[in-house]
Amino acid sequence: MRVLITGGGGFIGAHLADLLRERGELGGRRIEALALADQALPETAGETAIRGDLTQPAVMAKVATFRPDVIFHLAAVPGGASEADYALGRRVNLDASLSLFEALAASGTRPTVVYASSIAVYGTDLPDLVTPRTPLRPPLTYGAHKQVCEILLADFTRRGLLDGRSVRLPGIVARAKTSAGLSSAFMSDILHALKAGETFTCPVGPEATAWWMSAQRCAENLVHAAVMDASRADPGGAWPLPVLRLSIGDIIDTCSARYGESRRGLVSFQPRPEVEAVFGRYPRLDDASARALGLRDDGSADDLVRRALGEIN
Amino acid sequence: MRVLITGGGGFIGAHLADLLRERGELGGRRIEALALADQALPETAGETAIRGDLTQPAVMAKVATFRPDVIFHLAAVPGGASEADYALGRRVNLDASLSLFEALAASGTRPTVVYASSIAVYGTDLPDLVTPRTPLRPPLTYGAHKQVCEILLADFTRRGLLDGRSVRLPGIVARAKTSAGLSSAFMSDILHALKAGETFTCPVGPEATAWWMSAQRCAENLVHAAVMDASRADPGGAWPLPVLRLSIGDIIDTCSARYGESRRGLVSFQPRPEVEAVFGRYPRLDDASARALGLRDDGSADDLVRRALGEIN
Repeated sequence: MRVLITGGGGFIGAHLADLLRERGELGGRRIEALALADQALPETAGETAIRGDLTQPAVMAKVATFRPDVIFHLAAVPGGASEADYALGRRVNLDASLSLFEALAASGTRPTVVYASSIAVYGTDLPDLVTPRTPLRPPLTYGAHKQVCEILLADFTRRGLLDGRSVRLPGIVARAKTSAGLSSAFMSDILHALKAGETFTCPVGPEATAWWMSAQRCAENLVHAAVMDASRADPGGAWPLPVLRLSIGDIIDTCSARYGESRRGLVSFQPRPEVEAVFGRYPRLDDASARALGLRDDGSADDLVRRALGEIN
Repeated sequence: MRVLITGGGGFIGAHLADLLRERGELGGRRIEALALADQALPETAGETAIRGDLTQPAVMAKVATFRPDVIFHLAAVPGGASEADYALGRRVNLDASLSLFEALAASGTRPTVVYASSIAVYGTDLPDLVTPRTPLRPPLTYGAHKQVCEILLADFTRRGLLDGRSVRLPGIVARAKTSAGLSSAFMSDILHALKAGETFTCPVGPEATAWWMSAQRCAENLVHAAVMDASRADPGGAWPLPVLRLSIGDIIDTCSARYGESRRGLVSFQPRPEVEAVFGRYPRLDDASARALGLRDDGSADDLVRRALGEIN
């Protein structure tokens, strides 16, 4: 089994690579070769490092030459950055993804592609319960391109050229503090601040609700997505990862219970309407189809916080 | 008002150009200049002919230089042909459409774009009633690319760079007999045969139901789509054109009543499962949102047939 991770040097990619190294197998088959593709990568013994980005033909050629059986496609320009630079977002999030699907399809081996889509496909002004029938209205170009890639991947799957599985990632925590271009960075920043006992100015109010997942649980879900039996599932081939829906108040309560009641006074609120609209009004999510396939959330707010902050695995 | 039609030399494009010439205005504004873009175009006095296809940079440059206020984007490789030649379908139906949207967005004048999407976005195995909440599962790459372009156009509209309106065209009749690459050609062919009193072998059974519209009514709907007030409509910006849902049996009944009972014996049936699955099982369509905006069907099966066969306008 040969496994490739695009964006393998990124926040989620690094967690996923760690998990795959630790397990050494995928779906009962030994991982003989692991390749990471990213702009910058550390030197890791015995692994293939493909440095550069997927918009470069030479990088795409190396990906094809590696002939992966399973590909985790995580590489992307985040939402804020791709909204600010349309051409960059188009090139990386749309063009390079489609080129990757085409290159993999051309291998003739029908590899499995786990595509990291995003809850950014859903949009604002959502109903009280988001279901598989809720029309998608992406509020940023980033989400529109994610939705487009879900459709293109499903089409390659329908044609029998790839075995695609798109999973929509919620807010994944806790990223390092400088997450350039990531509009939802506050979800990670507040966790770091509350653990460290630092003050934090929150761009959404205490009632703002979001969909949360730790990077570790996200990596486990990505691995599971590669091996789950999706054959009888919806031909759309896209699932939201099951989430914990938590308010900022819930996060403060959870961190205060764990790190001390003094934490409560550290957070002040300066809600920004444009951030609240996109990241602060997530309603309930009907994720039954994803749970039925074995995908799962972090279990509890306390486990989410501890996992996100590296205290448990 | 400057108006451009891509695919202006095609079946629907020619009907649309005729209608615009006849009316001379759009939404109460005089049409000062009409441009048609297509691979082959007749010489028409006073009009701009842009010969070539949109995948050629020189053609795209001419489109941008024309600076249209309203664009009808009809140019496409049909479903059967794009399924047989993926690269061609991608280049024309996906890449050229996105390039067109980008070129028009760069004008800075927020032109109106009426995009001819297709009921090919819906898919097979549809529920008894198709609604705006029915998940789209395009059964051909053609439909997947149409869905993708709807999403991309809606994103340009959200960003305030274009005023996009995607309308999903049903089976449009009656095309000339040699419609290469068009899997639904039988819908037109049966009409021509029944009028002419010729035998016809139908690739779907008499119970097969499809969604029908005459080219004339389609052209009227495209014109209306350019001027209708879509500002408070769903930000997805895509509507099915209201359709007549008719079985092949209904078509035979209608033509027999009009052209003579002898027509009944002319049609024999050799149903092909792959054609029936895609073109013969259209259920009821909830097109209320499209009707509320003023879009409309042909009124009756008899009017559809007469209009399609050029007997009334």
